[in-house]
Amino acid sequence: MKIIDGGVCAAKGFKAGSVRCGIKASRTNDDTAIIFSECECNAAATYTMNRVKAAPVYVTMEHLENGVARAIVANSGNANACAPDGMENARRMAKAAADFLGVDEEDVAVASTGVIGQRINIECIEKHLSEIVLSDDASEQANRAIMTTDTRTKTAAVEFTVGGKTCRIGGICKGSGMIHPNMGTMLSFITTDCAISHEMLTDALQENVKKTYNRVTVDGDTSTNDMCVVLANGLAGNELIDWQNEDYQAFCKALNEINTRLARQIAADGEGATKLVTCTVKNSRSEETAERLAKAVVGSNLVKAAMFGADANWGRVLCAMGYSKAPFRPEYVDVAFESENGSVAVCEKGAALNFDEELAKKVLTANEVTIQIDVHEGEHAATAWGCDLTYDYVKINGDYRT
Amino acid sequence: MKIIDGGVCAAKGFKAGSVRCGIKASRTNDDTAIIFSECECNAAATYTMNRVKAAPVYVTMEHLENGVARAIVANSGNANACAPDGMENARRMAKAAADFLGVDEEDVAVASTGVIGQRINIECIEKHLSEIVLSDDASEQANRAIMTTDTRTKTAAVEFTVGGKTCRIGGICKGSGMIHPNMGTMLSFITTDCAISHEMLTDALQENVKKTYNRVTVDGDTSTNDMCVVLANGLAGNELIDWQNEDYQAFCKALNEINTRLARQIAADGEGATKLVTCTVKNSRSEETAERLAKAVVGSNLVKAAMFGADANWGRVLCAMGYSKAPFRPEYVDVAFESENGSVAVCEKGAALNFDEELAKKVLTANEVTIQIDVHEGEHAATAWGCDLTYDYVKINGDYRT
Repeated sequence: MKIIDGGVCAAKGFKAGSVRCGIKASRTNDDTAIIFSECECNAAATYTMNRVKAAPVYVTMEHLENGVARAIVANSGNANACAPDGMENARRMAKAAADFLGVDEEDVAVASTGVIGQRINIECIEKHLSEIVLSDDASEQANRAIMTTDTRTKTAAVEFTVGGKTCRIGGICKGSGMIHPNMGTMLSFITTDCAISHEMLTDALQENVKKTYNRVTVDGDTSTNDMCVVLANGLAGNELIDWQNEDYQAFCKALNEINTRLARQIAADGEGATKLVTCTVKNSRSEETAERLAKAVVGSNLVKAAMFGADANWGRVLCAMGYSKAPFRPEYVDVAFESENGSVAVCEKGAALNFDEELAKKVLTANEVTIQIDVHEGEHAATAWGCDLTYDYVKINGDYRT
Repeated sequence: MKIIDGGVCAAKGFKAGSVRCGIKASRTNDDTAIIFSECECNAAATYTMNRVKAAPVYVTMEHLENGVARAIVANSGNANACAPDGMENARRMAKAAADFLGVDEEDVAVASTGVIGQRINIECIEKHLSEIVLSDDASEQANRAIMTTDTRTKTAAVEFTVGGKTCRIGGICKGSGMIHPNMGTMLSFITTDCAISHEMLTDALQENVKKTYNRVTVDGDTSTNDMCVVLANGLAGNELIDWQNEDYQAFCKALNEINTRLARQIAADGEGATKLVTCTVKNSRSEETAERLAKAVVGSNLVKAAMFGADANWGRVLCAMGYSKAPFRPEYVDVAFESENGSVAVCEKGAALNFDEELAKKVLTANEVTIQIDVHEGEHAATAWGCDLTYDYVKINGDYRT
């Protein structure tokens, strides 16, 4: 597997583009993006588990039900959630993209992110969407158009081999942010030229999302608009993957690489974050247990605030594990902090180690910190990603909308 | 029922006192308190659900297993959790109190709050505990001795009637705070002169804790040391309550009054908090559903940050309800914000209302704000309490321990 550039335009036959329709307050930034395949794709998607779902989530569910798609249209600036005329406007957005691209509107996935409770200015989108110039070099541009308070674009692409054929897969995403302070949304769009059936693509995505995006926590708040869509157009020419063979494994490995890279970028760019915090739990009795423990640790406000302060406060790590409801024996637990600046063991068998506070502070001031936990109970492991809790998180989210 | 003063010393036959043993860094504040009954009490307690439990939690469980007790000894400055010699030292603490008071050590409940992972300086406690001067006017003093980053004492007491006899019940507690930044702990100690059996006291407490303390969220982190202990010495002379009769209901009502008042004080004094945030969900299909929804709302970092910024960001309220996993129909939901400054309806049937932003800001700048939610589905209701998320929360918890 080889890391390459190109994001959603890395795979053969995919183009992207963006335009400023005027949804966002900003007068300069694009706010609407399209990702387009020159031929039909098998498609799979996962959606927010929030009971309150935005209109574009429902429309995309409808449109992808038959397992095929050609394009994705997405806007920032308005989430079209709990908004007047939401369903109608999400459908109009798909239709505008379909008309522009010359495809069926049922082959278009729709996604939105931004303020909720306000009517989306669909007339603006209908008016300006056709100004988009599609290109096979516009992944970054499309990525920027869907950013809200994200401070950087988030992209990944790899080249891999299936049955002797070179395939590519790449993606872009946006993480937690807000436009007119309101709500963070995870949107992730993946494209591949690998030939894979709708069923296999769905299996691969659903399995992998659990281990990547669903292991990211920025603030514990699950958005109404989260969505991950994968389009596979088959232009790589490999034999169609339609069962769980070796080719399927190769595809899953590539998909996992993309989603893991994007998930880490989302965590690292969490609102107000100054660092990526990774927690790995190993030697657990099950992967589910390890996952629960790791997510509780990166999700704890007290752990997150300690990471911001570069405070080797391992007691909070144990405390978070303790209330995770996952089974483990506190008296078996070892905890260490690691980063590019070194490693420091702080807790052994559930009890304090006499560690070097200077070293610990140095380890924890890095931009990426890993909390290594060994529960000494079995053979399973899991990793979760989060970020620190900072003054800026409070600032970004405490500001008046008005 | 009549509100009175006196906290844990309000009921007949209870005394309290405190002393500085030297556990805390502060050279002036007391750090160890005793609450004592002049005769044997029926006792009940609830403990942290955290899998990692501090040593004093286990020792108190042992000592209260027979349902009787005479005293509570509690210290701040060291949580005696994940600490060397924890069990032995918690037992020595109970013994030191028992020797001083001339009671059996199994009749003493032990509680600690403060830094975790460090050996408690038990020798200091053993040396200084006997310097305590017990008095029936020292509830506030005992309360101050168990404070960590609490900014004020938390107390409540009421007088009520059982079978023609005047009874009293009162309590003190500490909330989320830290001493040498580490961990918040909820400790609550209640005393009453009402005659009530161990079994009835246990029923009453367990039932009521679910609706009071367990509906408080400061930061979602459940401590290793949480404990609520009730001592009932029977000196009011009422007929012993030993079944669920009218007298039991009168007792439960008084207990609920105390615990609700203490719970609200804990929420209002959450770390860094500038305001108490109450969420009431009504017309829900069950009380459990209403509780889940209310707790999700007051527990959401995004809602908490919006409350800090006095931002009427009702979309975050709906979003939090949506990920609570409790059943409700978004399209039925009404949301309003209320405070002493007025009331403003912001969402009706799941959609935005065109509300007065000026009025909303005024409502939300009060010290106590209520989020009123009507889900229009049934007849049940629940209330949960929390606080806002502020720069100071991050500051308190991000500071170096060293």
